[in-house]
Amino acid sequence: MDITGESLIGASHIKGGGTAFFAFNPATASELQPAFHTAGKAEVDCACELARIAFDPYRNTDPETRARLLESIAENILALGDQLIERAMSESGLPRARLEGERGRTVGQLRLFAEVLREGSWQDARIDPALPDRQPFPRVDLRLRMIALGPVAVFGASNFPLAFSVAGGDTAAALAAGCPVVVKAHPAHPGTSELVGRALQKAVSAAGFPEGVFSLLTGIGNDLGIELVQHPAIQAVGFTGSRQGGLVLMSAAAARPQPIPVYAEMSSINPVFLLPQALADKAEPLAAAFVDSLVLGVGQFCTNPGLVLALQGPDLERFSTAAATQLAQRNAAAMLTAGIHHAYQKGVGRLAANSRVRQLSQGVASDAAGSGVPALFSTSAQDFLTDPQLSEEIFGPASLLVACRDMAEMLAVAENLEGQLTATLQMTDGDHQAVRGLLPILERKAGRILANGFPTGVEVSYSMVHGGPFPATSDSRTTSVGTAAIQRFLRPVSYQNIPQDLLPAAIQDSNPLAIGQRINGQLSGK
Amino acid sequence: MDITGESLIGASHIKGGGTAFFAFNPATASELQPAFHTAGKAEVDCACELARIAFDPYRNTDPETRARLLESIAENILALGDQLIERAMSESGLPRARLEGERGRTVGQLRLFAEVLREGSWQDARIDPALPDRQPFPRVDLRLRMIALGPVAVFGASNFPLAFSVAGGDTAAALAAGCPVVVKAHPAHPGTSELVGRALQKAVSAAGFPEGVFSLLTGIGNDLGIELVQHPAIQAVGFTGSRQGGLVLMSAAAARPQPIPVYAEMSSINPVFLLPQALADKAEPLAAAFVDSLVLGVGQFCTNPGLVLALQGPDLERFSTAAATQLAQRNAAAMLTAGIHHAYQKGVGRLAANSRVRQLSQGVASDAAGSGVPALFSTSAQDFLTDPQLSEEIFGPASLLVACRDMAEMLAVAENLEGQLTATLQMTDGDHQAVRGLLPILERKAGRILANGFPTGVEVSYSMVHGGPFPATSDSRTTSVGTAAIQRFLRPVSYQNIPQDLLPAAIQDSNPLAIGQRINGQLSGK
Repeated sequence: MDITGESLIGASHIKGGGTAFFAFNPATASELQPAFHTAGKAEVDCACELARIAFDPYRNTDPETRARLLESIAENILALGDQLIERAMSESGLPRARLEGERGRTVGQLRLFAEVLREGSWQDARIDPALPDRQPFPRVDLRLRMIALGPVAVFGASNFPLAFSVAGGDTAAALAAGCPVVVKAHPAHPGTSELVGRALQKAVSAAGFPEGVFSLLTGIGNDLGIELVQHPAIQAVGFTGSRQGGLVLMSAAAARPQPIPVYAEMSSINPVFLLPQALADKAEPLAAAFVDSLVLGVGQFCTNPGLVLALQGPDLERFSTAAATQLAQRNAAAMLTAGIHHAYQKGVGRLAANSRVRQLSQGVASDAAGSGVPALFSTSAQDFLTDPQLSEEIFGPASLLVACRDMAEMLAVAENLEGQLTATLQMTDGDHQAVRGLLPILERKAGRILANGFPTGVEVSYSMVHGGPFPATSDSRTTSVGTAAIQRFLRPVSYQNIPQDLLPAAIQDSNPLAIGQRINGQLSGK
Repeated sequence: MDITGESLIGASHIKGGGTAFFAFNPATASELQPAFHTAGKAEVDCACELARIAFDPYRNTDPETRARLLESIAENILALGDQLIERAMSESGLPRARLEGERGRTVGQLRLFAEVLREGSWQDARIDPALPDRQPFPRVDLRLRMIALGPVAVFGASNFPLAFSVAGGDTAAALAAGCPVVVKAHPAHPGTSELVGRALQKAVSAAGFPEGVFSLLTGIGNDLGIELVQHPAIQAVGFTGSRQGGLVLMSAAAARPQPIPVYAEMSSINPVFLLPQALADKAEPLAAAFVDSLVLGVGQFCTNPGLVLALQGPDLERFSTAAATQLAQRNAAAMLTAGIHHAYQKGVGRLAANSRVRQLSQGVASDAAGSGVPALFSTSAQDFLTDPQLSEEIFGPASLLVACRDMAEMLAVAENLEGQLTATLQMTDGDHQAVRGLLPILERKAGRILANGFPTGVEVSYSMVHGGPFPATSDSRTTSVGTAAIQRFLRPVSYQNIPQDLLPAAIQDSNPLAIGQRINGQLSGK
């Protein structure tokens, strides 16, 4: 398939009139062909208007029809074959195995949402039958179901060119919910975005849906994104990126005449708590596993373990020494973009210059421009609590070890943390009592709490929460990964005394979709 | 029980140092004793800090314990007996029967949330068991449950001194979810608020919960509410009131270093569509029922039918004539507050002065100050579409009839509406085809769609949605009435590889709460 550098507006492809730009291969520091053409306000308007027009017919398709669309998008992505993988490798510098894995996850998540659609509990179908003889007043017939919010703007993330991008989690969840999607491609992987966008466009067209179900806007600069968020047709926003970027979108959405929800996943340092007994039992293997997690994907994961907490003493010394030794052997590697690399260098430099911080180790530097060198720092809990700068995310393979005097101080550090995507406990049976003190705090701080693993690696399943309190995300009430993500694009509507033939299928007495229905609060029907 | 004019801060009662004020009887235009003392920043801080401290122990109580708290609050409210009803009558001018009914609803809603707690599906318990042999990577053990958001600020509404006030829907839902509550009493019924607050305080104390589970702040002026919303301990806001008031709270919440969700129910004109066949069949009885709904409670309901749409012609003439005649016989009555009356007079005056509008009828005026006189106006759809002022809510017993040339114009008016709490269809079998055109629009515009009734009268049940798109509310994803309201105060947390003895009861393998658990997405356990 040819990459043309165009935006995909419904069924059309349009060369935007804005600034032209090129994709960049961070591994070879070279520009990639062809030129991409930044979309302007006219393209935003057109994509959003088409989405508005598509909304009613699309959301009113039956769930089976939308399930098949998701499955056909998955097929079309696979049919792109090696071209997709190779273009994504060129644009991201990520290795083949990682991108093939990410493609598998992307396709798997589309298929999982197809299952979700068929299972039907996402509709939250409820029926409270009329009680004509109730005293003092009869009760009306009341029913409830969830409907789609409206057209959704999705911002592709730089660090997952497939799984958090054009056909990523937000797009899959929104399309499943019945929302048309307008994606703003991330300019770090515009060719990958276009290929996936065309796969999506083809699936929408083959299914005979209105063309506005999907559009893809390509471009650089901030105007495009802001115009998209401010378009009156857009009813929700999905974003994965920097805190600064997320805050800008939140402001733009709140300043609209009609404010809309923004689901921005922004920043997280993902604290890892090394409980005393676990640390005593296995300081060295823990250090090795920690460094593996830290440098995975050049540390460019939202769930990268940027903070490690432990009690000071000889066991922590063993861990520090082992981690420092391990890290010193890890090579620098190309980061996703020059911007990310620049921010990483700045963050590491700031830590290195901080008098409260000691640098324990750094990885093997590289001559290649744009390479991120792994780095490990340490500080005391007291200093960590004093200096808010030490809590700031450094996106990349850097982490900070914090030595606590005692469990009380570890709890104080936990209590002082901002909202996080994850919190990790390294523990053994002997640590359960200490963990009991930590858990209530961590539940308030994080969207996912994990034991004896590392936070990188996000399972796409029913029970995943990839989310958490601000500033990890803008809205702790939802997740961006896993089946529960469909709920962020839904709202409840209640139907009172509506005749059966006018009711949506989900809440008809005959239950034609054969889904679970709650009758007077009790589940039945499936 | 004595009314002292104090704020209730945890287990204490404290005389605020701010401006003193008195309750006012709108029916007799006289002040009521005693003086109330406006709480200041110190009281806000204290209430919020106590709530923060209470949060972990309270949310970690088992659901049965919280269910009993809700039931004991209901008992304590009933035990206030006639003192509560009489004080509420004095402070609101509402009749005894209405307030007794409202007390029944308030008590019923507390008991319904107790049932919800015991049933358990609110926890959304999910278990994805580990798959150690999965290729290429094993799957971890993942579980999900909902936990409480944190301390909630609840603003009492003027128009429901019981059911949307101190122990109203938001308080019941938040306490059920596991959130401590800090209520700002509405200054229109401070004595009613204090009585209910003391009933609540007593129940919290008798149950042995931390005192910060509930506080009540009394006062006038805007500072108190803003300070409450901006306190870092507060994690969500529930509000029912004016659009202006809701927008102020939304801005204050969005401007916090950590933004928080605001559930503001603000304004709605609740369009009523008179479909042609229904209008032809029963113009006169529809007119009578409409006027009953319009003047109920002096029109001071969020769901008051402020807009009626029908096709122009002789049937609409019959309806207009009958409604005008009916309305002309209805008496003016005392409105809740001088402020509400003033705003009503202004709104009606603005309509009367609008050259696009014709006044059809008005009710019987009264010499009593603060009385709202029912009023009925009419205009054409074309004028309605031209002049945005005609869509503005007039809180009180006023309504506007809009004559449409044809169904296409009726659809255009529907499409042009802002978000609404309700949309009503008056229809017969012969109207189903026309309704099919309206329904998709109304689903996008309203939280509840009802047929052959009037929107006043909100059932507290499983399937109720009292909510809707902006500006009806600030967040269309939730409801403020009915069992689904518990969800607005919850967020999901995921647990990965956490040992059984450290897991919350809801997601333990042994399912000690005997609630529904979704295993790999399939419901089981109950």
